Amino acid sequence: MLGSVAGKRLLDLGCGYGENCRCFSQMGCIRVVGIDISQRMLEIAQAENRAPNIQYMNMPMENVSSIDECFDIVVSSLAMHYVQNYDLLLKDLYALLNPGGILVFSQEHPLTTAPLAGAKWIKGADGKVDHYRLTDYSRTGKRTVSWMVDGVIKYHRTFSELINGLINAGFVISEMEEPVPSAETIQRLPQYMKDLHKPNFLIIKAKKP
Amino acid sequence: MLGSVAGKRLLDLGCGYGENCRCFSQMGCIRVVGIDISQRMLEIAQAENRAPNIQYMNMPMENVSSIDECFDIVVSSLAMHYVQNYDLLLKDLYALLNPGGILVFSQEHPLTTAPLAGAKWIKGADGKVDHYRLTDYSRTGKRTVSWMVDGVIKYHRTFSELINGLINAGFVISEMEEPVPSAETIQRLPQYMKDLHKPNFLIIKAKKP
Repeated sequence: MLGSVAGKRLLDLGCGYGENCRCFSQMGCIRVVGIDISQRMLEIAQAENRAPNIQYMNMPMENVSSIDECFDIVVSSLAMHYVQNYDLLLKDLYALLNPGGILVFSQEHPLTTAPLAGAKWIKGADGKVDHYRLTDYSRTGKRTVSWMVDGVIKYHRTFSELINGLINAGFVISEMEEPVPSAETIQRLPQYMKDLHKPNFLIIKAKKP
Repeated sequence: MLGSVAGKRLLDLGCGYGENCRCFSQMGCIRVVGIDISQRMLEIAQAENRAPNIQYMNMPMENVSSIDECFDIVVSSLAMHYVQNYDLLLKDLYALLNPGGILVFSQEHPLTTAPLAGAKWIKGADGKVDHYRLTDYSRTGKRTVSWMVDGVIKYHRTFSELINGLINAGFVISEMEEPVPSAETIQRLPQYMKDLHKPNFLIIKAKKP
């Protein structure tokens, strides 16, 4: 979905340990800025995924408007569902992009973030997964879940909110993907069969005209 | 989502008894074409919702390319999920629209069409709805369900398929809605509370640039 990054200026929101930043640098980006809220992760990024054209900056995504340069590509991997003010962030990203620039982000699938009580699979009498317990899809907003630690806060948004937020910020929707394992993978690893009931991830690509 | 229809040429796909066609005519459309696969419904439309600027045509949506005129607006209410070749229909509709024209359609929500065994609510020990039994969201394609009669065939598509189909046909996505009853309605009619777990309808507006 990203296309060629050669010669492009790229911003990575929530870059973590910087593995993607290093890839983008190696793929020909002329400049890569990676931001993350975790200073600890950035120290590892600086140690393990350094390059002359990569700059790591310690800041929350909510502060991107303080970055004083423009980009051709903004990417974000599995971070957008932690942002409280999605609409504002999109406006900031739109301002940071050059005309023709693209935003590509992945996040937890809206069906994963929906249940107020957390994502849950229901098993049948045979002990196998029968279905996904869907609740609260249209009750958008804050979710408090356990992930590694208790009390992680994320935000559930419907497909409409995600799409309309981008359009209202001025973006043109280019592509949407809800990836699932291939039939071959599922045959080899049957535990992934349930992803066909409910995908885990959503990827959206949008363009600044 | 439709905006003003005054002075516009409008095509209604799956017009049924023609109530919407009459509304559009009364709202100032200069021409309304309503098509439906049911000759019986069109006879009632002709009898009850006739107007000099409305023309009813008996044809399946799949044959719209045989219509030899252009439109400013194409609407379709709860019919799109019966169309087998969505991508082809969108290409045909794109060709029928004038530049700047819009397509607005509603359909069953993808979470409603998803389960191969049909939409189903699971109740708790208290007899109240606990959750929606979500399965098969990523298994797109044919669904055979009972609705008034047995063996009704419809087609399940993911959000990605719906969005990408429009984009690939040349449309620009303008807006998406997943309407649910208001808090006031739910207080008055608590049986609609479950719509907050899973909406029933999806509405998409797209524009021909």
